[in-house]
Amino acid sequence: MEKDTKTGQPKWEDGKLKITAISPINIALIKYWGKVNEEYIIPLNSSLSITLSTDDLCSTTSVYLSDQFENDTLTLNGESEEFTTRIQGMMKVIRDQVPEDGIEVEGKKVTKEELLKMHVSVVSDNNFPTASGVASSSSGLSCLALCLAKIYGCDMDMTEISKLARLGSGSACRSLFGGYVEWDRGFDNLEEVDSNLETIGKNSKAVLIQDEKHWPDLCCCICVADSSQKKVSSTKGMKTSVETSEFLKHREKVIVPKHLSMIKDALKDKDWNALSEIIMKESNSLHSVCLDTYPPIFYQNDTTKALISMVHDLNNNHYEPIAAYTVDAGANVFLITPEKNLKFLLNTVKDLAGLSDDKIKFSFEKDVESEHNQVDGDAMTKIENEYKSKINLHQIIVTRVGKGVTIIDK
Amino acid sequence: MEKDTKTGQPKWEDGKLKITAISPINIALIKYWGKVNEEYIIPLNSSLSITLSTDDLCSTTSVYLSDQFENDTLTLNGESEEFTTRIQGMMKVIRDQVPEDGIEVEGKKVTKEELLKMHVSVVSDNNFPTASGVASSSSGLSCLALCLAKIYGCDMDMTEISKLARLGSGSACRSLFGGYVEWDRGFDNLEEVDSNLETIGKNSKAVLIQDEKHWPDLCCCICVADSSQKKVSSTKGMKTSVETSEFLKHREKVIVPKHLSMIKDALKDKDWNALSEIIMKESNSLHSVCLDTYPPIFYQNDTTKALISMVHDLNNNHYEPIAAYTVDAGANVFLITPEKNLKFLLNTVKDLAGLSDDKIKFSFEKDVESEHNQVDGDAMTKIENEYKSKINLHQIIVTRVGKGVTIIDK
Repeated sequence: MEKDTKTGQPKWEDGKLKITAISPINIALIKYWGKVNEEYIIPLNSSLSITLSTDDLCSTTSVYLSDQFENDTLTLNGESEEFTTRIQGMMKVIRDQVPEDGIEVEGKKVTKEELLKMHVSVVSDNNFPTASGVASSSSGLSCLALCLAKIYGCDMDMTEISKLARLGSGSACRSLFGGYVEWDRGFDNLEEVDSNLETIGKNSKAVLIQDEKHWPDLCCCICVADSSQKKVSSTKGMKTSVETSEFLKHREKVIVPKHLSMIKDALKDKDWNALSEIIMKESNSLHSVCLDTYPPIFYQNDTTKALISMVHDLNNNHYEPIAAYTVDAGANVFLITPEKNLKFLLNTVKDLAGLSDDKIKFSFEKDVESEHNQVDGDAMTKIENEYKSKINLHQIIVTRVGKGVTIIDK
Repeated sequence: MEKDTKTGQPKWEDGKLKITAISPINIALIKYWGKVNEEYIIPLNSSLSITLSTDDLCSTTSVYLSDQFENDTLTLNGESEEFTTRIQGMMKVIRDQVPEDGIEVEGKKVTKEELLKMHVSVVSDNNFPTASGVASSSSGLSCLALCLAKIYGCDMDMTEISKLARLGSGSACRSLFGGYVEWDRGFDNLEEVDSNLETIGKNSKAVLIQDEKHWPDLCCCICVADSSQKKVSSTKGMKTSVETSEFLKHREKVIVPKHLSMIKDALKDKDWNALSEIIMKESNSLHSVCLDTYPPIFYQNDTTKALISMVHDLNNNHYEPIAAYTVDAGANVFLITPEKNLKFLLNTVKDLAGLSDDKIKFSFEKDVESEHNQVDGDAMTKIENEYKSKINLHQIIVTRVGKGVTIIDK
């Protein structure tokens, strides 16, 4: 098994400097939608996410430095990829922060000059298939940011590294921490943005709200929907929303601040009733903005909608909510649920979707304690009749809250 | 054929007083969504609709008065229906306005006292099936309002009668006029409503913006979608939106006033580019609010969304928009298009939906002049590939702008 290093230091391998990290994906509960600046990747609104366990889904990224490399390269899941402008931007920030007296790795000194002459090779792999519909940029770019900061010996804490990750992919900054993480947009009023871009670029960062031990029993079932819809990338989608939605600014000014304040209280108090309601309302709010975009952006398909309505029907038939749904820029549904409801929820969705056991990816202890008969027979029969043929899923990936990006000994 | 009477007067039939009217349906282009008062049926925002020709879709309503009836009755499409509280409310308003010296019908006097002693029988029929998914309340209740005002000899103009129709079903008030009609909500600021209900009840009325001759070539293809979704009635849906949507008040305060002002200009100038864009944005805005409602209300299904995206794709491949879509509280799509585009649009949708000719209800002259090859071959091939199996329709009803409710000789 791979093991966390205490030091998080690079090492030598075949004459090359090397460091490796694993990083989780994160799922936004308060959604990031819209940038106010594309260069600095400053978001229109602050967001907040749950970090998912690297035991189930993760990116593993190694960074190598060597003066024998002819240029900077990126290999993603075994394929050579473009070393994008954004990654070049991250490299520039890092190279500006290399210590004057260089670094020392396993007793061997490397001067600043030598470091800056070396080229970089980035090798990144996800343990989840692209077809799973789970966005990989949040895990891949947070991994890269941590590796770069460590291998160049930069004096940066996780907060500083989150800003670096942000430059690679906005939401990646939230994977720097485990548990429940806010991406603080870095400014108070929209009006101040244009004249303060550099300052805001330094303020826009990840903030740990509650770590993964605070509320450890929250699970997430990633319901991977079968979607044949024309896909609008989230980058393009949010750009069009910023340009055309008549609701987005109201969301930025009024709704997100309210939801953020409420979700922080709900997390602090471990108030599942409050948390689940905010999660669902936030998801709806995002897709409402997408529909108000011109032309409208449809991420949810009939399966997404059936799952959402099913959750409301389940919740209405129980003394407290059984699950909360959240949907990103796609048709997949993330079902958040306390561990005690997991078995019941999973069996319900599995049956309605007609999924066989091999379509359920479940890496942690399956026999979690579970309440029985959470919804009474008549109500369940009604729910089965209502949704039986309406939910088409490829697979369900079951995971839970976990820790942030970590250097590993590999 | 039935014929308009010049006088619009009641007559005697088998010893009973009788009057008959036909009324159009209207389709909101600026949407009505939400009431501020349920008793007076005061809408949250003003709305604006296109009145559709009674040649294609209409309600025919006869009102009989007789002292031989034992009570007030309502027969709808041949079936006995409840004489609802709302209709009783309309009756009360009318009975309060019967002239002191009664009425004279075909030379025979009927005193006020005699009129008030008589019971009423309402017989209403729609020429479109309920399954067509076209709401019948706007035509049925506007018919009833006109008939009641005329048979009781009340001194009410169309504006006054629109207020009466409003009490039966809010949007019915807009069917009093042909062409393009606003339902003026009757107040300026939301804050003044609660203390001025009676005044606002007198101000909330239909206003003719442009009659049907102003822009006569606008057609409407009603694409009746195959929907198996659980249906939330618009009455219930808008109530839940008022209670829970975080966007609805912003829509009331900022968006609807802007859209209303823009659509009136577009109608005045017969500016199809502007009109089509506002129609589509308004429709999206309504469904955006529905999605932001808690629990979210889904009226659009995958067919609705495919038709909407198809319209954008067609429009993007032509020098001016080919059509505009608008969707009410259901999955049906109303495609508005100038006559010159009708043939092309209809053939496109028909082919994509795989509809046979007998599923196209088309009562007016089919061989309308039409431009050819409005979208070039490559773009059309792409559109066909994209939407071919995604549009499931029962039928298409083709109609056009028409005149308002009218007394007929029947």
